[in-house]
Amino acid sequence: MADYRKMWEDLGMNVDKHDLLCEALPDAFGGIYLSQEKRPEGMNYFNFVVAEIHGVRPTELLEHQARGGKVFGTFCVYVPDEVVFAAGGIATGLCGGSQFWVPAGESVLPVNTCPLIKASVGARLDRTCPFFRIADMYVGETTCDGKKKAWEILAGEVPFHVMDVPQMKRPQDIGRWADEIKGFIKVVEEFTGNRVTPEALHQSIVMLNNKRRALKRLYETRKADPVPISGKDALLATEIAFYDDPSRFTEMTNNLCEELEQRVKRGEGVFPAGAPRIMITGTPMAIPNWKLHHLVESAGAPVVVEESCTGTRYFEHLVEEEPRDLDGQIIALAERYMKTNCACFTPNSNRIQDILRLAQEYRVDGIIDYNLQFCGLYSTESYLVKQALDAQGIPYLHIETDYSEQDFEQLRTRVEAFLERLRK
Amino acid sequence: MADYRKMWEDLGMNVDKHDLLCEALPDAFGGIYLSQEKRPEGMNYFNFVVAEIHGVRPTELLEHQARGGKVFGTFCVYVPDEVVFAAGGIATGLCGGSQFWVPAGESVLPVNTCPLIKASVGARLDRTCPFFRIADMYVGETTCDGKKKAWEILAGEVPFHVMDVPQMKRPQDIGRWADEIKGFIKVVEEFTGNRVTPEALHQSIVMLNNKRRALKRLYETRKADPVPISGKDALLATEIAFYDDPSRFTEMTNNLCEELEQRVKRGEGVFPAGAPRIMITGTPMAIPNWKLHHLVESAGAPVVVEESCTGTRYFEHLVEEEPRDLDGQIIALAERYMKTNCACFTPNSNRIQDILRLAQEYRVDGIIDYNLQFCGLYSTESYLVKQALDAQGIPYLHIETDYSEQDFEQLRTRVEAFLERLRK
Repeated sequence: MADYRKMWEDLGMNVDKHDLLCEALPDAFGGIYLSQEKRPEGMNYFNFVVAEIHGVRPTELLEHQARGGKVFGTFCVYVPDEVVFAAGGIATGLCGGSQFWVPAGESVLPVNTCPLIKASVGARLDRTCPFFRIADMYVGETTCDGKKKAWEILAGEVPFHVMDVPQMKRPQDIGRWADEIKGFIKVVEEFTGNRVTPEALHQSIVMLNNKRRALKRLYETRKADPVPISGKDALLATEIAFYDDPSRFTEMTNNLCEELEQRVKRGEGVFPAGAPRIMITGTPMAIPNWKLHHLVESAGAPVVVEESCTGTRYFEHLVEEEPRDLDGQIIALAERYMKTNCACFTPNSNRIQDILRLAQEYRVDGIIDYNLQFCGLYSTESYLVKQALDAQGIPYLHIETDYSEQDFEQLRTRVEAFLERLRK
Repeated sequence: MADYRKMWEDLGMNVDKHDLLCEALPDAFGGIYLSQEKRPEGMNYFNFVVAEIHGVRPTELLEHQARGGKVFGTFCVYVPDEVVFAAGGIATGLCGGSQFWVPAGESVLPVNTCPLIKASVGARLDRTCPFFRIADMYVGETTCDGKKKAWEILAGEVPFHVMDVPQMKRPQDIGRWADEIKGFIKVVEEFTGNRVTPEALHQSIVMLNNKRRALKRLYETRKADPVPISGKDALLATEIAFYDDPSRFTEMTNNLCEELEQRVKRGEGVFPAGAPRIMITGTPMAIPNWKLHHLVESAGAPVVVEESCTGTRYFEHLVEEEPRDLDGQIIALAERYMKTNCACFTPNSNRIQDILRLAQEYRVDGIIDYNLQFCGLYSTESYLVKQALDAQGIPYLHIETDYSEQDFEQLRTRVEAFLERLRK
């Protein structure tokens, strides 16, 4: 990694503590990622992004700020990045995926909080993540009890705007979400000093739709058997989508897709044809949370699709590009985002329909329902997911875990036993 | 208890299992309640209600149903009972407060769910509570992740209506809650076959305001030192308020208050004057969850006020009685209910103001913040509660517990150490 020490110090980071994090990452990434065989050339870009994770993109964000631009940190696929970019801002994901940040989170949050929230709060309090230092404003949402209440604590630290996500999907709720987006536009306009014009919003809608199209294209190649890219690599690309420059990300992902499509044509894959194909459904995985994918793929089974916020939920639906007036665009945004089937909605039966559909589309042999510990939404919903999969005779494994490595061997045993079942 | 076996059998209850519950309750109630000294005469009514808990009121509800009336089961102080009574229905609380029901709840819910939700779902699935058998329709709400998702499972069992509680308290949220109440009126009208007329709604508003006035009068007497009634007894009355006949409850509570007011005049109390006065704040306590009150009062300190849904949150605000048209009444209801400061709202700083105000009004020496295990809302908010109390120098103890007796001795030690601090 280049020397970014001065930049980190200027950002008020705890540089000594941050060194510990920087030391651990290359080993973890090397062991989990670089050791894979037959990796696509196109992954080199994403390897580079991870290698320079606290350097290159933060430098770009600081340059943007030096030009007078604002940076908005977000935690959820429900926050419409389109609005931020239309106002000349940059949106960047802030979700913490490392156990490194959990203890600092636990200093203010109950231990019984999901690791993603604890790590996100901890990364801020610990001053060991440049993204959390750089963001001028955080944008939270009310998708779960844990986040909703954690924002109240973080709001004492940094300018914070919270979007109230509806908890149902009735027609009036789409209207309410449109109102929230309208309110968000106002907040972003005031904070950036720039108007969100219909022209600018149209451009950002198209830009982010193109990012979604690239991810959709990437996932399309995973339907092939043999699968041309590991689940780990696809997951990494999706994770990076949350904070990379959107246009560059789209270009690099499309480059990767061309290579993968050639592989599919040639029948080349990274796992043998016929290996049991796994879907992971459930809670999101933020960098460097690669634990479950690593377990499954080390046991010889490719993960071919993630029904998750770091998966299909992030890109499956496009925003309607036709409307060119602000009101029409806001409704288009509201409709698109409300198609995302998060367990925060009640009922959320459309998610179960998604799982069944994706299982067919990706020719899945078994489904692992992945729950971050203490995420009550997904763990409660798993009862209905299991019922639906049992009814269809689709093999199912429920896993609840955190960011630590303590349960690694226990999980390995369970995953291997599950795969054994599928191979019979 | 009189013989209600036939009634329980007709309700499809698991009578053998229910016998186990019936056997345990008298001992628990005797040890915790009847052993208290100088109990007010007026508590005899409430003792009777508990002694006949699965007999007398269920019989009344069945008689109501035999006359063609409907019974609505509720789980939250946010559901406006006024609407149910105005349509000729009866509303009854359904919250489970016993460890007895937890295992059945855990058969469908994650173990990491709060005991109140597990017990409520378990009481239904176990068929060991007549109230859960009798209710024609359950009315849930979206106040927390656990409940919101649990309703999806219970909705497979029984007609279910869910009210979407806003997560903020902006002006538009009051309007949204008014819309939810409007929707609820429609559901209740269709289900009962009766119109909710402005006249009937006015009557039920007055009836339930009178219940609130009686509880407020009861709590008013607890401001005296010495306190004329134990916290346990006041809690029991509040718990019973959730499912007793409202007019009878009001009358009986007012009778009790007359006796208590005489005691206050005479300077009589159930604890010595000067004993450390405790406020309990946090999550609600459903019958027979008397664990913390019993611990505190056995150690010689009266609980003088509960800032909780089984406490001041239940009765503090009245519905405006002036409006006589439906639209005006709905707004009055929405405004009144939205004054209740549940931790499901963000931010919820008004609750902290309530705690500070009540601490003064009730001349409190120390505050115990009571959290049902895995209630992420209150446990996360406790960080801000503690900050506010520290700033005011008010002694504070945070307790997280479930319905089991396993931590009883550990809690006793902590409570006694806390009281020791207050006596210094």
